[in-house]
Amino acid sequence: MSSAQIIFTFYLVAVTIGFLLLSLPIAHRPGVDLSIIDTLFVAVSAVSVTGLTPVSTPDTFSVPGYFILAFVFQIGGIGVMTLSTFIWLLIGKKIGLKERQLIMTDHNQSNLSGLVNLMRNILLIIFLIEAIGAIVLGLYFLNYYPTWQEAFLHGFFASVSATTNAGFDITGASLAPYATDYFVQTVTVILITLGAIGFPVLIEVKQFFWNLKEKRRFQFSLFTKLTTLMFLLLLVIGTVLISTLERSAYLSGKAWHEAFFYAFFQSATTRSGGLSTMDVSEFTIPTLLVMCALMFIGASPSSVGGGIRTTTFALNILFVYHYARGRKTVKIFRRELHEDDIIKSLVVTMLAAFICFSSVVILSLIESFSLIEIMFEVCSAFGTTGLSMGITSGLSTLGKLIIITLMFIGRIGMVSFILMMGGPRVQPDYHYPKERVIIG
Amino acid sequence: MSSAQIIFTFYLVAVTIGFLLLSLPIAHRPGVDLSIIDTLFVAVSAVSVTGLTPVSTPDTFSVPGYFILAFVFQIGGIGVMTLSTFIWLLIGKKIGLKERQLIMTDHNQSNLSGLVNLMRNILLIIFLIEAIGAIVLGLYFLNYYPTWQEAFLHGFFASVSATTNAGFDITGASLAPYATDYFVQTVTVILITLGAIGFPVLIEVKQFFWNLKEKRRFQFSLFTKLTTLMFLLLLVIGTVLISTLERSAYLSGKAWHEAFFYAFFQSATTRSGGLSTMDVSEFTIPTLLVMCALMFIGASPSSVGGGIRTTTFALNILFVYHYARGRKTVKIFRRELHEDDIIKSLVVTMLAAFICFSSVVILSLIESFSLIEIMFEVCSAFGTTGLSMGITSGLSTLGKLIIITLMFIGRIGMVSFILMMGGPRVQPDYHYPKERVIIG
Ligand SMILES: [K+]
Ligand SMILES: [K+]
Repeated sequence: MSSAQIIFTFYLVAVTIGFLLLSLPIAHRPGVDLSIIDTLFVAVSAVSVTGLTPVSTPDTFSVPGYFILAFVFQIGGIGVMTLSTFIWLLIGKKIGLKERQLIMTDHNQSNLSGLVNLMRNILLIIFLIEAIGAIVLGLYFLNYYPTWQEAFLHGFFASVSATTNAGFDITGASLAPYATDYFVQTVTVILITLGAIGFPVLIEVKQFFWNLKEKRRFQFSLFTKLTTLMFLLLLVIGTVLISTLERSAYLSGKAWHEAFFYAFFQSATTRSGGLSTMDVSEFTIPTLLVMCALMFIGASPSSVGGGIRTTTFALNILFVYHYARGRKTVKIFRRELHEDDIIKSLVVTMLAAFICFSSVVILSLIESFSLIEIMFEVCSAFGTTGLSMGITSGLSTLGKLIIITLMFIGRIGMVSFILMMGGPRVQPDYHYPKERVIIG
Repeated sequence: MSSAQIIFTFYLVAVTIGFLLLSLPIAHRPGVDLSIIDTLFVAVSAVSVTGLTPVSTPDTFSVPGYFILAFVFQIGGIGVMTLSTFIWLLIGKKIGLKERQLIMTDHNQSNLSGLVNLMRNILLIIFLIEAIGAIVLGLYFLNYYPTWQEAFLHGFFASVSATTNAGFDITGASLAPYATDYFVQTVTVILITLGAIGFPVLIEVKQFFWNLKEKRRFQFSLFTKLTTLMFLLLLVIGTVLISTLERSAYLSGKAWHEAFFYAFFQSATTRSGGLSTMDVSEFTIPTLLVMCALMFIGASPSSVGGGIRTTTFALNILFVYHYARGRKTVKIFRRELHEDDIIKSLVVTMLAAFICFSSVVILSLIESFSLIEIMFEVCSAFGTTGLSMGITSGLSTLGKLIIITLMFIGRIGMVSFILMMGGPRVQPDYHYPKERVIIG
């Protein structure tokens, strides 16, 4: 099986498991009757850690249902992330990834068991992060909820939902109850970022501290530098744009720290988190368009997020800039980018834009929502972000199937999707004369 | 001067001439006071043969004004087209355009005077087309208008406006008065197509018939095959999509031939014509989105049209398809495309999408129109199409300046725009180690 097929198969198995578990009567509140399409929707949304849902989580699912959901986030979010990183490390040698090799051989982990060992360590770190998040939020939530059971249930679910970027909530209003609680928001942003920054980055940071302890020098890979820089840039740009565009709208009359946190949290959550501290449909259209673009870009590769990915976007920008300057090679961080990666990033973006555009056209034909509501829902699904202007429950069955497909494509990644659709790789060995054409 | 600078300078000179001529009192109807921004808007719209206008042409301009407008279409539409083809033929040898060379040497026109001679012949053909169009439409319009002066004025203006793809009208309602007159529409579509199909194609077709007369074989260039095929494909796809999407909306209850002509004409006009046989704001959102995409793609390179161009779009599609099939080279019509052209087409599309998206965000911030109205206006300006949902006159001065800029960029073409913005072409002669990154 090709790597794309492995990820695809894993995803389907995870959706099947999620669907079956969420169909169990014990998962539902008494008297709730969940339709098949809605169960499938929630299962895909949970496995793809998107967070869009046609039903209210606290009104539909029981406490055992919450734990089932949290379990599905883990296999969907962390499972796919681990698997794709694993495949990436395994094929690293073949495609010449010297730095990946370094990470492995440093620990004498160039064989498979060493690799498995490394991944297990990282998984333990993730679970540790989730546990710390759950305890910190649980203790803090004693201020909000009457019993410790309730506080820790909320803490556990919020921590897992944030770290896996699932974006589901059991408050019934996402993080809006904590709209002025900067502690909860800061903890959540940290958890979201640890999930969305990408597994390879976490591995390298771990290695960096390991080397530091042993007083050895560590060289971060170009990938880690690029994706982390773009991640932070998007966070800053998003915060500035939302602050500016909403200054005389949603944020007017709010204190500077309140306005800042509304803009900052809503910017951070577009990376792929999907939790929100307000009803995003209260934003104006320019802000919503900017958020659409941010969700379309999405999170880092090999993370729990979706979209075209931060590296893809970074390569697009770098290449267009260098191209306009008349340069044939792209240099950054004292390294040169590979042409194949640049072309791949352009193709991924092009195809993603086409898929999202077509989805918007079809949805605006079959649904009766406004254009911006549909565009926002499509970008949110493709970016596996999970923010919504509130139309998810009103979609027709066909509409839900389109959103389900977008969550799927967004999560497994456009590259996997292209490779999977592309059929057999045949490289014909004949050539025709080359001929130029006029462009633009 | 670089070729981009030549085209840019010519464009500015043409806008200045157009602005001055349209400012003349003799150009206006008695009592009309045209503001500076509106005069500039009409001048840019006429030079870029877009056809968007904040004022009604028949209510604002006098009969001498009509002739001034028609003159500005000529220098804007045919002038820029001739100039860019001229430059393209001149640099043809340098970039290895064997087929371009062939056309020139066949007539012993490899020197500059031969080239000028060739261009003059082609210009004569265009003027001949305009004259025939004016006479045919003028005679036919005797059915519509009481005097022959009026009929031939309408015939002349309609012919020039269609052939140069200017899209201006003196009926006050575009071609809506001829909404059920299939003769006028057919003639207009032919004239629009002759202008938008591209100058190089016209040259080759002329050469084809010349060779035919002399019983010699003629090989059409890859460029001509690609752009003509894409032109026809877009026409068919547009007609089918508009027919389908509007079947139970605007076209419901209409006879099949009436429905066909509404869909066919509105599809053809998105190439860059800009005339319409109905008020496009009566279409539903899915249709308007499809038309946005068609206008964004635009016409052929070196034509009187705008947008990213048909060849750019064709190369995008061909490359994404071949890439997904795992092939490194793109073969079509027994020829291979050049990598540089493929990359150029991807960059052009990416940058164009970014410019249009940013324009939509800014316009939706400063104007109070709906999202689809703004998207439609932006795509229409960038594609120099000139269709509008009716918001042009209501735009603020800043909004008008944005649309003016889009018409400018759309007309000179993204490649010229990139080259112009890019500054000095410096190719550094040092290299860094290459490093791969994860995409998507
Ligand atoms: K999410
Ligand atoms: K036009």
